[in-house]
Amino acid sequence: MPKRSLPLSQVYRLLEPGPVVLVATARAGRTNIMAMSWHMMMEFEPPLLGCIISGRNHTFDLLLASRECTVNIPTSELAKKVVGCGNTSGRKIDKFRTFGLTASASALVRAPRVEECYANLECRVVDAKMVARYNMFVLEVVKAWIDPAVKRPRTLHHAGRGVFVIAGETLRLRSRMK
Amino acid sequence: MPKRSLPLSQVYRLLEPGPVVLVATARAGRTNIMAMSWHMMMEFEPPLLGCIISGRNHTFDLLLASRECTVNIPTSELAKKVVGCGNTSGRKIDKFRTFGLTASASALVRAPRVEECYANLECRVVDAKMVARYNMFVLEVVKAWIDPAVKRPRTLHHAGRGVFVIAGETLRLRSRMK
Repeated sequence: MPKRSLPLSQVYRLLEPGPVVLVATARAGRTNIMAMSWHMMMEFEPPLLGCIISGRNHTFDLLLASRECTVNIPTSELAKKVVGCGNTSGRKIDKFRTFGLTASASALVRAPRVEECYANLECRVVDAKMVARYNMFVLEVVKAWIDPAVKRPRTLHHAGRGVFVIAGETLRLRSRMK
Repeated sequence: MPKRSLPLSQVYRLLEPGPVVLVATARAGRTNIMAMSWHMMMEFEPPLLGCIISGRNHTFDLLLASRECTVNIPTSELAKKVVGCGNTSGRKIDKFRTFGLTASASALVRAPRVEECYANLECRVVDAKMVARYNMFVLEVVKAWIDPAVKRPRTLHHAGRGVFVIAGETLRLRSRMK
C-alpha cells in the first residue's frame, strides 16, 4: 500500500520499542545502507533520535559529510536483507542493488528511503558534538512516512550475533505515560 | 533461581533489543524506581549505556546526586508493576513497597536491584555533560546479574500510551555482526 505521512508527534511510538533500523545515506550519486540497533529517542517533538555509528562504517563518513539520512524500519520478512546490509560494506558494493531493495525519493532530504520498510523517517544531523567522543549523532526527524496497511509490525530486535527477537503479542494497559 | 554474574562483554545483548527497563536509585535511605525506554548502548566493553531521564522525574534528582543506579530488565508478567512505576512519583510513594517489588543489595553500588527482574545491571554515571542540553546520562555498567533459568525472556517494548509489544519468536541468522 502507498505510504502516508505520519505526524511527527507520533514518531517516538515507532522507535521507542527499540527495533533494528536501516540507515540510508547518499553522497555524490552513491548511496549506502547500514543496519543499526544502537539508537534512542531523545525528544518527542520535534523528534530527536540519538545513535551510535562506528567510525569503521562507510555510513559514518557519508553521514558526517552529507548531514542527512533516512531511518527505515524493517519487519521480519526483511531479516536476511538486514543481516546482508550488516555484514557488507558500502565501500565495496551497492547495497540497494545487491539486496534487491528499492530506493525511493525522500521529500526533504537527498538520502533515499528504503521502500520495502513499513516506516521511513527523513532525518537531518542537528548535533555532531558527541561524535568525537562517542561516535554519537543527534538526528532530527523532519518527515515521517508509514504504510497504513501494517497494523502490527513484526519488527526485529537484535540480541547480538545474528540472533533476532521478533515483536510478538501486544499488551494494552491503562497508562498516563506518553 | 538465584542470579549469577554475567560477563560485562555480554551486557549489550540484553539492552540492544530495546526493552523497557526499571531504573532503581537510592539516596539518604530512600529508594525509587522508574520505567525507562529511552536508552541505547554506546560501547561494548566496558558497557556504556546512554539514557534520557526527564528533569520532572524524581529519579533525575536522585541519579544526579548519587551518581549510581541499577538498570533492571522486567519480563511480561511484571507489566502491571512497570506501568505502576511509570505512573506514580517516588516523591510521594515507596515504589518497592507499593508494587510489591523486592530490593536486593547490589555488589558495587548503593542503589538496590529489583529482584523480580530477570537481569540487573549495576551502573555508575560516568558522563553528565549532556544532562544540561538533553537530560542525557551516560552510565557504565560495572556489574551484571542474570537469572540463568530465563532462556527466552519475554521482554516488554513500549510503543507509547501503555501499549507494549512483547518479545516473541527468535530468529537466528548467520552473521558476522557482533
